[in-house]
Amino acid sequence: MPVRVATAFAPATVGNVGVGFDILGHAFGVIGDRVRAERSEAPGVRIRAITGVTEPLPLEPARNTAGQAVLSLLAQSPVPFGIELTIEKGIPLGSGLGGSAASAVAAAVAANALLDAPLRAEELLPHAIAGEAVASGARHADNVAPALLGGLVLTVGIDHPRVRQIPVPPAIRCVLLHPHMFLSTRDARGVLNRLVELSDVVWQTAHLAGFLAGCYANDLALLREAFEDVLIEPQRAKLIPGFPAAKRAARGAGALGCSISGAGPSVFAWCEEGTAAAVRDAMLGAFQGEGLACDHWIAPIGGDGARIVECR
Amino acid sequence: MPVRVATAFAPATVGNVGVGFDILGHAFGVIGDRVRAERSEAPGVRIRAITGVTEPLPLEPARNTAGQAVLSLLAQSPVPFGIELTIEKGIPLGSGLGGSAASAVAAAVAANALLDAPLRAEELLPHAIAGEAVASGARHADNVAPALLGGLVLTVGIDHPRVRQIPVPPAIRCVLLHPHMFLSTRDARGVLNRLVELSDVVWQTAHLAGFLAGCYANDLALLREAFEDVLIEPQRAKLIPGFPAAKRAARGAGALGCSISGAGPSVFAWCEEGTAAAVRDAMLGAFQGEGLACDHWIAPIGGDGARIVECR
Repeated sequence: MPVRVATAFAPATVGNVGVGFDILGHAFGVIGDRVRAERSEAPGVRIRAITGVTEPLPLEPARNTAGQAVLSLLAQSPVPFGIELTIEKGIPLGSGLGGSAASAVAAAVAANALLDAPLRAEELLPHAIAGEAVASGARHADNVAPALLGGLVLTVGIDHPRVRQIPVPPAIRCVLLHPHMFLSTRDARGVLNRLVELSDVVWQTAHLAGFLAGCYANDLALLREAFEDVLIEPQRAKLIPGFPAAKRAARGAGALGCSISGAGPSVFAWCEEGTAAAVRDAMLGAFQGEGLACDHWIAPIGGDGARIVECR
Repeated sequence: MPVRVATAFAPATVGNVGVGFDILGHAFGVIGDRVRAERSEAPGVRIRAITGVTEPLPLEPARNTAGQAVLSLLAQSPVPFGIELTIEKGIPLGSGLGGSAASAVAAAVAANALLDAPLRAEELLPHAIAGEAVASGARHADNVAPALLGGLVLTVGIDHPRVRQIPVPPAIRCVLLHPHMFLSTRDARGVLNRLVELSDVVWQTAHLAGFLAGCYANDLALLREAFEDVLIEPQRAKLIPGFPAAKRAARGAGALGCSISGAGPSVFAWCEEGTAAAVRDAMLGAFQGEGLACDHWIAPIGGDGARIVECR
């Protein structure tokens, strides 16, 4: 029996993870976007509705991350029917939690389920990347890959990306805060210097390498030492009032590390399970000091990637 | 019985390993330096002789990497006797094979054996770093740490360096060539731009991360993809005639990667055991095309670090 309707969920993601600008990201499955794909008589791709947003998003498929992901998929795997998409945003817009990537991934996964010969998950990656690029203006995989595959994911390359899941020490939790403020990805990108000091690069690479070795070897002391972005975070910290204080508070409460999620304004900390609540409270207090309320969550690092939640 | 004479061997090392400028290095145990330390009546540190060199090296202990390493050790662990050092250089001077580091490490290990309460190997690291700094003008651990500990070693930090051994796929061999030409470390450092493009940094970090993930996961395809220094090597390649051709030849013969060892002029390639001889011959041919003869070796990656070879 051919599938007529499929709904997929794709999780939020923490991009960069501090030390891995544009190359690392991890899933954060407590929140996410859902996309429903349904066969239609009319050919082509159509977006029927978008719910869960306070501001309008483009309904034209080629200008919508979910729509473009499906257009890209169908260009490779043509179908003799149309597809109608219904998008349910669970991730706040402009939060730095990978909402564009989650919609693109969920759409690709849902539409894929309608195909007579569905692609494997990894084969959907280029289509999700093409979808996400509609929002970010460039092709990046650091949110798309973990939203699709789950876990902590390293991406090497863009045109033919190789993605690898990195093991994460099981005792670690992620505290995630979304302060109620607006910060455009464009501004967060625009503040970055095009040239960086080689000496800073040596520190950043040492930290990235130590972070990865700490993950592979389950070495929390090394993780704690290495979990520090000396390259990007210092340039963006001033865009998020309360972040420097929240980071100090997180470290003071025992966090292994604390940084900005993607381009912000959301911020995250990794910590041992027993300290997670204290770290969250300390960070919330710092943002309250700036008059900023926050959504907040605690969850294991990584977890499942996108999945079909309805199929008939 | 107190030890009166100890001789230590410390291996040559490949610094940077392409993707890990100033933070990665691996031992190469086929060649190395030996340092003999002997108790003497006269207090202080004295260098009795240096053999195996074509040009004179400083005999004044504070200006000699081996001497300074022992001075640093004795400042922490004073002894009621003097120490005489005899240095046997097995690593060509100015080759980019970590000769300064090997002498500093071998001296620290040999002198340590004379102590009533010898330090652990890791505790010798700061003293070996202090010794090596006499030659390089700055404190680096990317040669010292693998010469001391063996294996492929990551160093995070300098003042309180954390070192970690990274597993290497057992099937891999290192082809090492030392072309007979002079290249000063100072010139090789001087050619580097102080500022680098952020876009290059993203590529370099992706490659470093892929390289490490490839090592941990024994993923040769990922190693091959990631084994490319886009940051430092392009700036130094022109200092070593024949290197660009040797690199192309190595890749063509199946090498996983090929780059400059430390500051050069030695160059190295990682390859699977079965292709090592072909890779070596291809690289030798490229240097011959520039009229450069080479010393050459093939050995497993890493291997043992410094060790006592005589003790009485």
